[in-house]
Amino acid sequence: MRDTPPVKPVEWVDGTLRILDQRQLPRAERYLSARTPEDVAEAIRVMAVRGAPLLGIAAAYGMALAARESNARDHGALIGDLERARQVLKGSRPTAANIGWAVDRVMAAAHRVTVDGTNGRAEPDAIRDAIAAEAGCIALEDEASCEAIGRLGSELLPEQGNVLTHCNTGALATGGLGTAQGVIVSAHRAGKRIHVWVDETRPVLQGARLTAWELQRHKVPMTLVPDSAAGTLMAKGRVDAVVVGADRIAENGDVANKLGTYQLAVLAAHHGVPFYVAAPFSTIDLDTPNGEAMVIEERDPREVTDPLGMPLAPEGTSAFNPAFDVTPANLITALVTDRGVIRPPFGPALKRLARRSSGRVQDSDIPTEVPA
Amino acid sequence: MRDTPPVKPVEWVDGTLRILDQRQLPRAERYLSARTPEDVAEAIRVMAVRGAPLLGIAAAYGMALAARESNARDHGALIGDLERARQVLKGSRPTAANIGWAVDRVMAAAHRVTVDGTNGRAEPDAIRDAIAAEAGCIALEDEASCEAIGRLGSELLPEQGNVLTHCNTGALATGGLGTAQGVIVSAHRAGKRIHVWVDETRPVLQGARLTAWELQRHKVPMTLVPDSAAGTLMAKGRVDAVVVGADRIAENGDVANKLGTYQLAVLAAHHGVPFYVAAPFSTIDLDTPNGEAMVIEERDPREVTDPLGMPLAPEGTSAFNPAFDVTPANLITALVTDRGVIRPPFGPALKRLARRSSGRVQDSDIPTEVPA
Repeated sequence: MRDTPPVKPVEWVDGTLRILDQRQLPRAERYLSARTPEDVAEAIRVMAVRGAPLLGIAAAYGMALAARESNARDHGALIGDLERARQVLKGSRPTAANIGWAVDRVMAAAHRVTVDGTNGRAEPDAIRDAIAAEAGCIALEDEASCEAIGRLGSELLPEQGNVLTHCNTGALATGGLGTAQGVIVSAHRAGKRIHVWVDETRPVLQGARLTAWELQRHKVPMTLVPDSAAGTLMAKGRVDAVVVGADRIAENGDVANKLGTYQLAVLAAHHGVPFYVAAPFSTIDLDTPNGEAMVIEERDPREVTDPLGMPLAPEGTSAFNPAFDVTPANLITALVTDRGVIRPPFGPALKRLARRSSGRVQDSDIPTEVPA
Repeated sequence: MRDTPPVKPVEWVDGTLRILDQRQLPRAERYLSARTPEDVAEAIRVMAVRGAPLLGIAAAYGMALAARESNARDHGALIGDLERARQVLKGSRPTAANIGWAVDRVMAAAHRVTVDGTNGRAEPDAIRDAIAAEAGCIALEDEASCEAIGRLGSELLPEQGNVLTHCNTGALATGGLGTAQGVIVSAHRAGKRIHVWVDETRPVLQGARLTAWELQRHKVPMTLVPDSAAGTLMAKGRVDAVVVGADRIAENGDVANKLGTYQLAVLAAHHGVPFYVAAPFSTIDLDTPNGEAMVIEERDPREVTDPLGMPLAPEGTSAFNPAFDVTPANLITALVTDRGVIRPPFGPALKRLARRSSGRVQDSDIPTEVPA
């Protein structure tokens, strides 16, 4: 980053994973030290670390911790330990596609060691090294993905105008500048005069706590709003685009993202406001045909009844707290991925992009489009 | 109420107005004692007392306090003091129609004393009595209004189903059982199997604090949800009707109500869910042609940045906090008033109802309709 020291929400330090505890932000900058895959899974579950791409990175490092803590002396035993870690990490949060994508990719790297040979080293050690390298590679690739998403997406935003975003999709959610927020910050850096409406994003208030904090560090003009303000802002012509991230994108382009995304998409369509979803290709799950097939995580009702951990609703109040909802593809103006910007119908376009090599964007090959 | 002792959010006790401090609910049941119109205006401003119909009642009693504290010994001086109180009370919150309606009505009662004669009593004392009587009458009429609204509105709800509501529109917001919440509780009492989705209603969380509390007292099945959940609930077919209150209804049927109401109306229309607005006729302001002409109160940004009074967003975060938004008449399925249920186009129907005598409902004369 140009204007502020970079945020490091996860960092591999001396064989442990140092995790910025995002639950404490912006009041305090505290770190957890994860030494086992169970530590990482717990940090994911309680949302000390969150954000779909970052969850992939954290889970990959969780596999590296599993390899490191394993006493296995042969290939089979180590693979067994890794398999257990994979299940623990996959079970931590069910909706984020990136977790499964990352741990599967790390496992594939482990299996490749045997196939490719170990250059005479003990097989378990070679696997440990390969896994650590793969986790680091996933983190670096996500940084590059963010850069590509930011560059491609910023072209979609007007030279001047108001952009509404939901939840947090910045450096605290990724390995780089962010997805939806990367688009916004890139546009700002490119000299576009963008003002951001930041949805506070109840119940966990990622907008109020994290996005506000990050946008201030980037000096992007912003105003915090309750999640109920989007409709009236759009009705008054005060929203020129909505940009959000994604936790899982299905084969047909349906998007699971933070609760509230779906109703923003309906509102945007009603008011003729473009609705953009920005995500790395690792969030796209071509094995999930559509939103109907997605598992939506339900979280502790106390996140709703006890805002900021303070019991507020009367004792015994039941609450419904789905962490995500599904936005059908037909409400999405464009998907901004690191491999290109695509417009509906998304199915064929996603398949086309899937054939490209991961993490590499060829400008000549990208169907970018100018904003309407 | 049948099942619980009645809530008395305002009560005239020995020449003072006892106000239940709703900011403390549901954790504590504390009361303020208002002795002057300024006390009442301040209680309104800080939302110790809130809810459009109840604001009318509180403001009327505020006028009674003004008459009581005035040392005026002649008609002109007392009217002058009352006029000052009227302005103070009218300025407390600009969007609620009921405040202006109530203080105007009290002033009219004061003026009538001179016209009608005082039966030989000192004119100021006769005016004081007339004002106290008028305030009490406004409170009693609102109780009757709620009863009529509840009875008429409950017929619109299905025998069994899920109703979503926003903010608080119960006994804590009115002089009786409530408006939108009165509809829900009446349906429940009539044996309909209604489950309520209660929007928590950020930023002041009237849903989580007040509606949850009231519905539990009435034993109406309910589930608290973040305001961002309405869209996905509707998409899954889990909302059969939306019922909300109103703070001001224009001549053409446009409705100002708690922020978030407008986007609920858009979502309801998108999903084919009926959207009902319930309010006494005193909320209808035939002098306001439409929503464009309404003043929307903007409240302290700290209600957004500092949820529950705890600084959360980073220091220096600006926030936008409109207390209300405007729902255009074309998104409203029906208005449920104490004088009848009306459907679009609302303009002519509102004019027709306006000709009926206030506070009296003639069953034979009401265009009730069965639910679709």
